[in-house]
Amino acid sequence: MPIKTIEWTGGADGAARLIDQTLLPTELKYLDVTDVETMWEAIKVLRVRGAPAIGIAAAFGLYLAVRNSHTVDTTNFKAEVDKAAAYLASSRPTAVNLFWALKRIQRLVDTNAGQPVPSIKEMMLAEAIAMIDEDNAVCRAIGEYGATLLVGQADSLPYRILTHCNAGGLATAQWGTALAPVYVAAEQGRHIHVYADETRPLLQGARLTAWELQQAGIPVTLITDNMAATVMSQGKVNAVIVGTDRVASNGDVANKIGTFGVAILAKEFGIPFYVAAPTSSIDMSLASGDLIPIEERKPEEVTEGFGKRTAPTGVDVYNPAFDVTPHRYVTALITEKGIVRPPFHVSLHDLFAR
Amino acid sequence: MPIKTIEWTGGADGAARLIDQTLLPTELKYLDVTDVETMWEAIKVLRVRGAPAIGIAAAFGLYLAVRNSHTVDTTNFKAEVDKAAAYLASSRPTAVNLFWALKRIQRLVDTNAGQPVPSIKEMMLAEAIAMIDEDNAVCRAIGEYGATLLVGQADSLPYRILTHCNAGGLATAQWGTALAPVYVAAEQGRHIHVYADETRPLLQGARLTAWELQQAGIPVTLITDNMAATVMSQGKVNAVIVGTDRVASNGDVANKIGTFGVAILAKEFGIPFYVAAPTSSIDMSLASGDLIPIEERKPEEVTEGFGKRTAPTGVDVYNPAFDVTPHRYVTALITEKGIVRPPFHVSLHDLFAR
Repeated sequence: MPIKTIEWTGGADGAARLIDQTLLPTELKYLDVTDVETMWEAIKVLRVRGAPAIGIAAAFGLYLAVRNSHTVDTTNFKAEVDKAAAYLASSRPTAVNLFWALKRIQRLVDTNAGQPVPSIKEMMLAEAIAMIDEDNAVCRAIGEYGATLLVGQADSLPYRILTHCNAGGLATAQWGTALAPVYVAAEQGRHIHVYADETRPLLQGARLTAWELQQAGIPVTLITDNMAATVMSQGKVNAVIVGTDRVASNGDVANKIGTFGVAILAKEFGIPFYVAAPTSSIDMSLASGDLIPIEERKPEEVTEGFGKRTAPTGVDVYNPAFDVTPHRYVTALITEKGIVRPPFHVSLHDLFAR
Repeated sequence: MPIKTIEWTGGADGAARLIDQTLLPTELKYLDVTDVETMWEAIKVLRVRGAPAIGIAAAFGLYLAVRNSHTVDTTNFKAEVDKAAAYLASSRPTAVNLFWALKRIQRLVDTNAGQPVPSIKEMMLAEAIAMIDEDNAVCRAIGEYGATLLVGQADSLPYRILTHCNAGGLATAQWGTALAPVYVAAEQGRHIHVYADETRPLLQGARLTAWELQQAGIPVTLITDNMAATVMSQGKVNAVIVGTDRVASNGDVANKIGTFGVAILAKEFGIPFYVAAPTSSIDMSLASGDLIPIEERKPEEVTEGFGKRTAPTGVDVYNPAFDVTPHRYVTALITEKGIVRPPFHVSLHDLFAR
């Protein structure tokens, strides 16, 4: 069972307990966060990362911001909540899930403006805790559906999965998206082996995926990104599973830089390429992935990636954080509502029409 | 014009001047090597690297080993040479070019065993210097032939080349193999732009290729290996040129890990994939690339990139140093005797039959 990334300890006066991911993979340290400033900093410096985990952290942060407020007037209390939400939103201004989670709590406060403040506080905490339960349910469902895809290999051999970046438990409350099928299949007693791309420039595969699988006792082999073709050519990969930041309505998939290359290699070697995509990541308002803006990040991530300068001063660097894999490379999307197959412009429409 | 990687200073009592590549890209320092122990160490710790450059360095090392010998008996002198050759060969036991260069000097000593020792010493130095001239001639010819391939782009736009690892001047005496066409085309006044893969795990692209192109005033953009698909999909790459460690008689190409993946991406995007291959790297005794043994290197290259641990302790790592790109992905080989195109089992046979 994967380790818990974020949980609530105790009752109304408890703490949000986070794994400090900046210390991984060399140190496992939990942070018990009891004030909003500490949560803001934790999100800012990536002690907690991954869209679902950030959303949950922000929800707890908002509760912590007003937990000790002495305000009794609900209008004033709502103003305090809104101010704290704006503050938390500033911790990572590009994280869509952060805003979504904050708005969800703010709406709850609005809807219950007639209630006494102590009751509203209780509801805020309950809502944040509910987000963990929902995240676990979504991830478990993705895991259950995904595990059904990991077949066709003789039982005597491990089923081997290649993944890129970290869409594991560390990006969610516990189970992950791309790694959920791995955890579920392992739970079912099946022999699973994961190849983890290290995922330059920020090495989420080496630092996080390798670590969490090792912690869970699942065999994992770390490779550099440019070894994927060789590993695939040796017949060592039965399937690729990756996560996603955003899926367009035609099935185009935005994910961590390098995903597109892995998808092309998988196609070349006839290996299925699966994307674990909670329906919350599917944006039916987007006609195609071309419309997804690609964030470019600072060159130092590439040139000083290891704490030491590894490229000449002044060199031009191109550092896109994401890429978009065209839908024709995607074998299936694994959602919490089931497996979705091409043609995606039809199957995704059907999924949301249900 | 690219910087000289290795040269001889002065006459019989001169020095082998090397760029200390372990200090790149942050410091350009020349080493004037005047004794065999220093040369052994320079090869061992990669102050000099790249097959042609190592061969030349070893040849100078052998001369330096016996330069001050007082032996007058040629049999004894030959024994000294053989002992020094065995010592130098131990500096990097997998470098084929190292043994080739040492044997070449040893054969010269054998052939001229009737000459007085001082004359033999002179011949040894002359032979080592001749190796530089030969290397320059081979690389220049590869450059001239290769430059003819870099066409079909409007003159107003730069011709954009993606390369992997370092098969540049720093791997040879001066001009490089994969980068020779770039230097020649730039000399011809053409606007060339290079995308350099950083090339994990040892970052030869970031540390060496980006540095030497920057020094030569050629526009270069550094990317991580997993960004190649995105850059290609954006239409930013007109051709790929890489070097090689060994080409089999069917055209299969062994080169730095990651080359195979780049070749697959190039095929997917309809981009020509060229391999700069001096005929000395073409091994007609090998029926196919399957017969080329792939060296696996220590996991720390992946897990402790540059002095800092970036993966969990005890994690399993697969770290092949090379991969083999099947010939069907190779558009052409660029040799010093001309461009060689598929079917390679015919064209390579013809090349060597000339």
